[in-house]
Amino acid sequence: MDAMKKIILTGDRPSGPLHLGHYVGSLKNRVAMQHDHQQYVMIADVQALSANAESPEKVRDNVLQVMLDYLAVGIDPTVSTIFLQSMIPEIAELTIYFLNLVTVARLQRNPTVKEEIRQKGFGASVPAGFFMHPVSQAADITIVKADVVPVGEDQMPLIEQCCEIVRSFNRIYAPVFPEPRGVVPPQGARLMGLDGKAKMSKSLGNAISLSDPLDELQKKVMSMYTDPNHVHVASPGQVEGNMVFSYLDIFDPNSAEVEELKAHYRRGGLGDVAIKKRLIGVLDALLSPMRERRAVFAKDPGAVIELLKQGTLRTREIAAQTMIDVRKAMQIDYW
Amino acid sequence: MDAMKKIILTGDRPSGPLHLGHYVGSLKNRVAMQHDHQQYVMIADVQALSANAESPEKVRDNVLQVMLDYLAVGIDPTVSTIFLQSMIPEIAELTIYFLNLVTVARLQRNPTVKEEIRQKGFGASVPAGFFMHPVSQAADITIVKADVVPVGEDQMPLIEQCCEIVRSFNRIYAPVFPEPRGVVPPQGARLMGLDGKAKMSKSLGNAISLSDPLDELQKKVMSMYTDPNHVHVASPGQVEGNMVFSYLDIFDPNSAEVEELKAHYRRGGLGDVAIKKRLIGVLDALLSPMRERRAVFAKDPGAVIELLKQGTLRTREIAAQTMIDVRKAMQIDYW
Repeated sequence: MDAMKKIILTGDRPSGPLHLGHYVGSLKNRVAMQHDHQQYVMIADVQALSANAESPEKVRDNVLQVMLDYLAVGIDPTVSTIFLQSMIPEIAELTIYFLNLVTVARLQRNPTVKEEIRQKGFGASVPAGFFMHPVSQAADITIVKADVVPVGEDQMPLIEQCCEIVRSFNRIYAPVFPEPRGVVPPQGARLMGLDGKAKMSKSLGNAISLSDPLDELQKKVMSMYTDPNHVHVASPGQVEGNMVFSYLDIFDPNSAEVEELKAHYRRGGLGDVAIKKRLIGVLDALLSPMRERRAVFAKDPGAVIELLKQGTLRTREIAAQTMIDVRKAMQIDYW
Repeated sequence: MDAMKKIILTGDRPSGPLHLGHYVGSLKNRVAMQHDHQQYVMIADVQALSANAESPEKVRDNVLQVMLDYLAVGIDPTVSTIFLQSMIPEIAELTIYFLNLVTVARLQRNPTVKEEIRQKGFGASVPAGFFMHPVSQAADITIVKADVVPVGEDQMPLIEQCCEIVRSFNRIYAPVFPEPRGVVPPQGARLMGLDGKAKMSKSLGNAISLSDPLDELQKKVMSMYTDPNHVHVASPGQVEGNMVFSYLDIFDPNSAEVEELKAHYRRGGLGDVAIKKRLIGVLDALLSPMRERRAVFAKDPGAVIELLKQGTLRTREIAAQTMIDVRKAMQIDYW
């Protein structure tokens, strides 16, 4: 590994198939960055278990699915290091020590956690493991001594929390960790869902999964929110807030043609079915190579898990070295 | 190890020298039980760090001191297994999984933690690691699959919390853990401090350490709270609430003589100095053999740490086996 390259950490909870929102907001960026960065990609199964303690089999199934999604989009496991969180026990160790450096009051104020607790409807019965999640995330980031963490805008408070922990640790014990920098990827970090009401999310049922077959893709695009007042093809339609045009803006490589279509739609005479068919073509051009790569890897799940194992073993070496530094700094390196 | 023997876990935070309160409430019991139980004794340095994150050197120094206290009182490291918490990373791992099985609201209601937070004056700025302490303690207990946990009455809520976690784990995943039983040792679990105001505690400065030299012991006994109205030797004195008699009741092997002394004190003519001198003799008869054993071991701190290392390595084998069971049950045994 090239010592001059910046270390990047990203990851996903394996709680369902990855979708176009993940692709636009993160996966595409990872494929682009993997060559000039030392990139770690974490399948955060421990974090997924914190909100799904009673469904371990669901989390386990999704570990393989997320790994297939990664390979499908073009994250190269010989270039990026893909690892499984639960198989790096050093992260748990570091989390325990970091928990001493954060107050309960500070965790209660973290806006990202507040919002997630609200979304999941936990209220006061939030599992302690879920509540602690900014601290375990700080351990995920620092165990590989990441310099850069690409995140959505809404995740920035987690990076701030991590930086606070890093500063406390470095001040009290010894300067072991770099302060990570949170970076919001340039293009549309938030992809709206098919219904146009909220960010694309598998739990809201408004998502196109990267692994959706063509007929599923067609059905979903055909159900997309457009202009509810555009009843007749001949009438003028509205482009603003029309999800099909929003998606064409993001995914259609021919923006000149998209602008022409918008003009046509605005003045009337262009039907929803026509623009939806175009979007299906555009999305299928993106997704069908992914579907093909996925199908190849899916034939041998054992080999896919082996790729994950190799990445995890590489990460574990780094993690073990980090814990040597941590133990020395904390004076708990007894033998 | 004898499979028929019950497994016991006890331990201490290495945050200061152990004192007579520890001896009466716990250490004496451990020496007595070590032969017919499979006993683990944990030096809880991770727990000590949760309230002393900024003083790692203090915790480290006290690891050796507590180990010397154990050897001094007669805990035999070839019979009991003494181990160091921070060197069993499996405890951290298990804690992280247990955190998913407990709600924040439940932790906030734990009376032991509430009281400790109050005592230490943390308020809302309680470190998350300290707040989590019932969960990490559940991991301490279950990592060795302990059946019995001797505790003070005030610690019983921690055992209840542990049992709740064990029941949740066994129900959701698989029956991996026995439900531990909390047992309050028969004799005087709470030894009052020299001032008679509160339980003996190093932080309250009302304690006689097991390692106090004779002159320190003398000075402390001479300062003990007796009967404040007993100004003249000839006057009648009060025995109830008189700490010297409380201690004689506990430590003096000749209870008939103690009863005679009480009668004499009550009717007048027996001075405080006389009863204090008797107590010094009684306590020194207990402490001087400890002091001698301590002095022998203290000559070779490296050998003492080696004994701790051997116990820790034995414990780690058990802990690793427990985590194999846990991972299998949770379906996170990927390779």
